[in-house]
Amino acid sequence: MTDVVMGSGAEFDLIRLMRERWGKLASGIGDDAAILMPPRGDRVVVTTDSSVEHVHFRREWLSMSEIGYRAVTAALSDIAAMAAEPRGVLIALSLSPEARERIGEILAITTTVVGSAHAPLGRGGARPGDVLYVTGALGGPAAAVRAFQAGHTPSNELCARFARPSARIAEARWLAARGAVAAIDVSDGLAADAGHLAAASGCGIEIRAERLPVLPGAEEADAIGGGEEYELLVASRALINEHDFAARFGIPLTPIGRVTEGPADVRVTRAGKRVETPTGYDHFAAPEG
Amino acid sequence: MTDVVMGSGAEFDLIRLMRERWGKLASGIGDDAAILMPPRGDRVVVTTDSSVEHVHFRREWLSMSEIGYRAVTAALSDIAAMAAEPRGVLIALSLSPEARERIGEILAITTTVVGSAHAPLGRGGARPGDVLYVTGALGGPAAAVRAFQAGHTPSNELCARFARPSARIAEARWLAARGAVAAIDVSDGLAADAGHLAAASGCGIEIRAERLPVLPGAEEADAIGGGEEYELLVASRALINEHDFAARFGIPLTPIGRVTEGPADVRVTRAGKRVETPTGYDHFAAPEG
Repeated sequence: MTDVVMGSGAEFDLIRLMRERWGKLASGIGDDAAILMPPRGDRVVVTTDSSVEHVHFRREWLSMSEIGYRAVTAALSDIAAMAAEPRGVLIALSLSPEARERIGEILAITTTVVGSAHAPLGRGGARPGDVLYVTGALGGPAAAVRAFQAGHTPSNELCARFARPSARIAEARWLAARGAVAAIDVSDGLAADAGHLAAASGCGIEIRAERLPVLPGAEEADAIGGGEEYELLVASRALINEHDFAARFGIPLTPIGRVTEGPADVRVTRAGKRVETPTGYDHFAAPEG
Repeated sequence: MTDVVMGSGAEFDLIRLMRERWGKLASGIGDDAAILMPPRGDRVVVTTDSSVEHVHFRREWLSMSEIGYRAVTAALSDIAAMAAEPRGVLIALSLSPEARERIGEILAITTTVVGSAHAPLGRGGARPGDVLYVTGALGGPAAAVRAFQAGHTPSNELCARFARPSARIAEARWLAARGAVAAIDVSDGLAADAGHLAAASGCGIEIRAERLPVLPGAEEADAIGGGEEYELLVASRALINEHDFAARFGIPLTPIGRVTEGPADVRVTRAGKRVETPTGYDHFAAPEG
């Protein structure tokens, strides 16, 4: 993609400023739309996601770059969950009028990621008998928000998990090549996202609470109910070597349960007995995150 | 694309409600990302565009369906300007908390359109000697906004041009097949968008005011300076048969000027003499549209 010379106007001045800061990261700017050429035979995978002030972020808790980082990660994570590779990112910023002076008053960010995959992974591929894995350690973002809300400063590790989450892109493709048949990213909370996977696959899901990889400083309830983790929940037909995964990616891969016959719901058990689970994060039920 | 069974929660209830209303228009819902398969050999063309209350629309002036229609048209129009065919639309809605009850309080809409084209058209392809064409008749949206702002109700035709503009998708592909070498949609205003095309192509542009197709009820200044038209401004190496175009699409195609040697600016002339032009619509300079 080559860059097009841009015309005059405040909007273009702002774009020019961003282009200078981004250097080669910003290419192909200037036409009405971006052009991408996915590898031959790949399907195009596309997702869009909004981050809205007071709903998904508060400026007191995050720096501007962290707000942007999280917004892009949320969309990248949806591409990761399809075992696709991102090929381009489009960002729509809603700024307050003062932002003509500086890019400092972000109201909302909508991030669109276009990716591609030869065989995209969906949520509906799980079958009874599959093993359920989760990447990384859970509970960090929820524990960080609890600390912020109580007026404390979370630990560095919790802060990092909240402010700079990772989209598990390479991890998803590695897992898909080793038997993963369904995946979802943990954006609504583990129990809620397991429920989406169960509903889509028409299967039950059993999660064993004692197996959950809880981040130090977080509680089990954070790990089960907290959203915006961006770890992957994966159902796999084959057993996957957790040590190989950990050696390659530097984060754990944990078998936390299994896919069962229907009905399509989620049972969290401890020592074989069902326990109550907190409900997941729901943008439309809980506008103050 | 098949639909995935969705889990529980208020967000999914809302999606289910919309899916019922949209019927077959909403397919492939439920996974983390949408999957598209563009024709072999096509490039993928993607654009994103935000419509923000008080900037791009006012609820007093438009119905909810018109707000949505315009938002989608704005993004479709960018795909049209690349002479690409739309293949999928993604919509991110920012709603106020009351919207849990009804989808009635829209704060912002971000629309992403993914299209594809074998040979996408850019802004930078114009060369001295090319003929400059514009589709349709201009000035309607600006005249409608003037009437609204003065407390009047615009005529039906002006209202329609403002509330239900058309993206010239088939028109652009037809023109690209007949000699068009550069295109831009008139979203910032004719003079401003001609300036973008001139800058990208490194050429001058001369527009003859007496040639402008001004919509009845609008003024020449509306046609030159008004934004959000979504008509196409096209530079063509070959002369294009305007009658064929009008017969096929039911709107005029008008040669309004030509591409000249640099410098890269726009001169609007009347009887060969340069006239002053109103500046275009600039989201960042004029937050109240």
